[in-house]
Amino acid sequence: MNYRMILRLLCSVLRIVAAFMIPAAVISLCYHEMPSFWGFIITMGLMLLLSLTSFIFPARKKTFYAREAFVLASITWLMVSVLGALPFVLSGTIPRFIDALFETTSGFTTTGSSIVTDYGTLTMGAKYWRSFTHWLGGMGVLVFLLSIEPITSGNGSGDSIHIMRAESPGPQVSKLVPHTLGSARILYVIYIFLTVVLFGFLMAGGMNWFDALTTAFGTAGTGGFANSPSSIGGFSPYIQWVVAVFMMLFGVNFGVYYLILQRQFKKAFRNSELWMYLIVMLAATAAVFFCVRPEYGTEDGLRHSFFQVSAIMTSTGFATVDFNLWPQFARHLLVALMLMGACAGSTGGGFKVSRVIMLFKSLQRELRRSLHPNTVGRVHIDGDTVSNDTINNTYAYLVAYCLIIVFSTVLLAFDRTSFETNVTAVISCLNNIGPGLDMVGPMGGYADFSVFSKIVLILNMLLGRLEIFPMLILFVPGVWKKARN
Amino acid sequence: MNYRMILRLLCSVLRIVAAFMIPAAVISLCYHEMPSFWGFIITMGLMLLLSLTSFIFPARKKTFYAREAFVLASITWLMVSVLGALPFVLSGTIPRFIDALFETTSGFTTTGSSIVTDYGTLTMGAKYWRSFTHWLGGMGVLVFLLSIEPITSGNGSGDSIHIMRAESPGPQVSKLVPHTLGSARILYVIYIFLTVVLFGFLMAGGMNWFDALTTAFGTAGTGGFANSPSSIGGFSPYIQWVVAVFMMLFGVNFGVYYLILQRQFKKAFRNSELWMYLIVMLAATAAVFFCVRPEYGTEDGLRHSFFQVSAIMTSTGFATVDFNLWPQFARHLLVALMLMGACAGSTGGGFKVSRVIMLFKSLQRELRRSLHPNTVGRVHIDGDTVSNDTINNTYAYLVAYCLIIVFSTVLLAFDRTSFETNVTAVISCLNNIGPGLDMVGPMGGYADFSVFSKIVLILNMLLGRLEIFPMLILFVPGVWKKARN
Repeated sequence: MNYRMILRLLCSVLRIVAAFMIPAAVISLCYHEMPSFWGFIITMGLMLLLSLTSFIFPARKKTFYAREAFVLASITWLMVSVLGALPFVLSGTIPRFIDALFETTSGFTTTGSSIVTDYGTLTMGAKYWRSFTHWLGGMGVLVFLLSIEPITSGNGSGDSIHIMRAESPGPQVSKLVPHTLGSARILYVIYIFLTVVLFGFLMAGGMNWFDALTTAFGTAGTGGFANSPSSIGGFSPYIQWVVAVFMMLFGVNFGVYYLILQRQFKKAFRNSELWMYLIVMLAATAAVFFCVRPEYGTEDGLRHSFFQVSAIMTSTGFATVDFNLWPQFARHLLVALMLMGACAGSTGGGFKVSRVIMLFKSLQRELRRSLHPNTVGRVHIDGDTVSNDTINNTYAYLVAYCLIIVFSTVLLAFDRTSFETNVTAVISCLNNIGPGLDMVGPMGGYADFSVFSKIVLILNMLLGRLEIFPMLILFVPGVWKKARN
Repeated sequence: MNYRMILRLLCSVLRIVAAFMIPAAVISLCYHEMPSFWGFIITMGLMLLLSLTSFIFPARKKTFYAREAFVLASITWLMVSVLGALPFVLSGTIPRFIDALFETTSGFTTTGSSIVTDYGTLTMGAKYWRSFTHWLGGMGVLVFLLSIEPITSGNGSGDSIHIMRAESPGPQVSKLVPHTLGSARILYVIYIFLTVVLFGFLMAGGMNWFDALTTAFGTAGTGGFANSPSSIGGFSPYIQWVVAVFMMLFGVNFGVYYLILQRQFKKAFRNSELWMYLIVMLAATAAVFFCVRPEYGTEDGLRHSFFQVSAIMTSTGFATVDFNLWPQFARHLLVALMLMGACAGSTGGGFKVSRVIMLFKSLQRELRRSLHPNTVGRVHIDGDTVSNDTINNTYAYLVAYCLIIVFSTVLLAFDRTSFETNVTAVISCLNNIGPGLDMVGPMGGYADFSVFSKIVLILNMLLGRLEIFPMLILFVPGVWKKARN
């Protein structure tokens, strides 16, 4: 294990996060929120101080394997969640550390579950910071690091790929974007461009610059923190349509946008995941619309249905109305959509559409094989044969995913909260959605959970964002041993 | 596809089920329940008439492959469920066909979910018959057929194995019992012996012969139909302990009993599934006891805890108290236990402990492989290497299992029943348990579901009992084509 190289990258992450805190400090200063301002300044100072350790223990070798990348990703995310929570605690905005940690982890992992009960206590700086964590966490802080500081060693781009794989969502780093040193930069350029376009559309709809900025962060990162308890419900239908459409766009594999930029339209749209994602979204919108039309009428009903399906499938978790009060069928359907999630290679969470497709096809293969045991079944997606390693990895992912849901739900039951609350809170946090049903519905919140339950849910958010394995691997015997070469 | 051979075996099944209806008819006659009596007589006549078709289309070839076995198993179970429901309808005991079908499918699949709301309307003949369906369905009607009429062809015992595999629970037909023609007979001899011993213990506790017989059927088959709405709650603590212990015994792989009979004690107890099953049962009992002791005191608390854990893990579903009213942690834990189920090769349902062990080990393997991609990981259980085919099959089983739970739950939501009701009803029916939570709690029932929901749950029970694949395979293109050789 190349500890010194991990340390070097962790220190780079610290400097990046500290730099990104500057706007939050400036906003606090402009609005005369001095406790917030000092909270950010002290945290930035602490981070810069910590980042000096890489000079004390400089990296000797640059070799970096899969296990280093997994360990780096896990530690990075724990570290930024803890340090990102400090300004809330230091400023007294969110006085209890566990609550601040919950809020910040929820921010970075783009979950959007909140413990805030009184939005009046949030300073402008705090609002900016928690929305910005969505934006940075959405595409990934390590991917950002790679985009400005490519890691090169004797292995060429191999090291970067390990890190991309550990932090980027999906069963495999997209084959759509070439595996060059520039892929992290390409992703961030597309990401920034789309965020700016969204910001423009929101400003054009009459939103003030601050709400437009934080809503753009929350939408782009598929996060879901809002500045008021009514989420996006208080804004105009135009704004709601814009947010709904952009949530959908940020749930698409960014490789598709790259190919469109490359004018490879045919390749971009020969993507079964994209079509499945759009078809499911359309069908679910229709089904929900059918349920809620009696309540809202055609026009409002269509908007609320599409908005909510888009918000849930992309794992953003914004709301325009309290869907916890919707008819049972619509509520159940939304929970099912939470499980599926968005496309691999997007900023969205969940199990990922491509994994669902792969598992469907593997199931078909097994059924064929139980009839004809001697045939060698292969799984094809978009014309390519999927390797058995990828399939086994996806299967194992499902196993871990199910175990985590069952165990976490039982652990939450210590709180005497309802079955519906516990199941949907776990599903919502593990898939980085935000709201669930019952107590954790879109107009409810996570404030009333015990410290123990909040820790369980924080772990679920981190497991979900890093797609389980990087965190589980910390507990495999042998990870911490010295590398053999 | 050897349709004629399938027909021949279906006709044998009809004759067996008709013969097993004789005691029900006799009991109806003794208690002067003439509508019930004629209901059984007419059904038996119909079954014998239908069974004559095998003389019109005699089987020419005896070749019998896996797909014939799967088709046979699926049709057998649909057929006995429909025909077994007729006496209830004809006698007017359960007038609506869908309700009678639900009750009979629930009986044969050893689920024990009931639509009966007024136990006073059930005749003695009907009570006997629905409990008997548990006993026959527990070990399997096709396994019974094999035990009295071995199928021999050029392939030796190969054909019987296909049928055993299609109807017996577990990831593979147990390696504990030798694959001879006699294995079906061995299983039934052990099964009958244990049932008789249980019957003796119940009689010794002062139960009347009828309750002792039906309770023995329900326990042995891990079914769960009771003769009164209070289930086993109305009987003495001695009876409750006896039933709890025997439920546990019937949830053990019958191969273990075979090995004990063979005096191969060492081999019998070198069985990780058995130990995991016992350890989980013990730990869960302790956890539930901790929750409910304030309510019941130590002695009653211990009995109710062990009884309920045993009833749920073995998928029997009897109850001594209304566990739906227990603290949330105990309720949640029981749902988690429903998902795991009993040992493979037992009469119990659920996902099976051996599958859970296999998936745990496969997950560990994948974690190791993501660190060292070039190692070939193998999964070992009890010293044997598990083949990749078996692991892939188990993975695919999990995929199908999850999809069924999610889809069925959403479909039940059309009824406007609660999330808790729907999730636990599906889990309970798919795992052949019986009770769930909320509306379908142990003192509740399935009567209030719509016809559509009842059909969904009937399919879940059949899918669970046949372990999904035999039923899914009916929809694979190519199954119905003529065999190539």
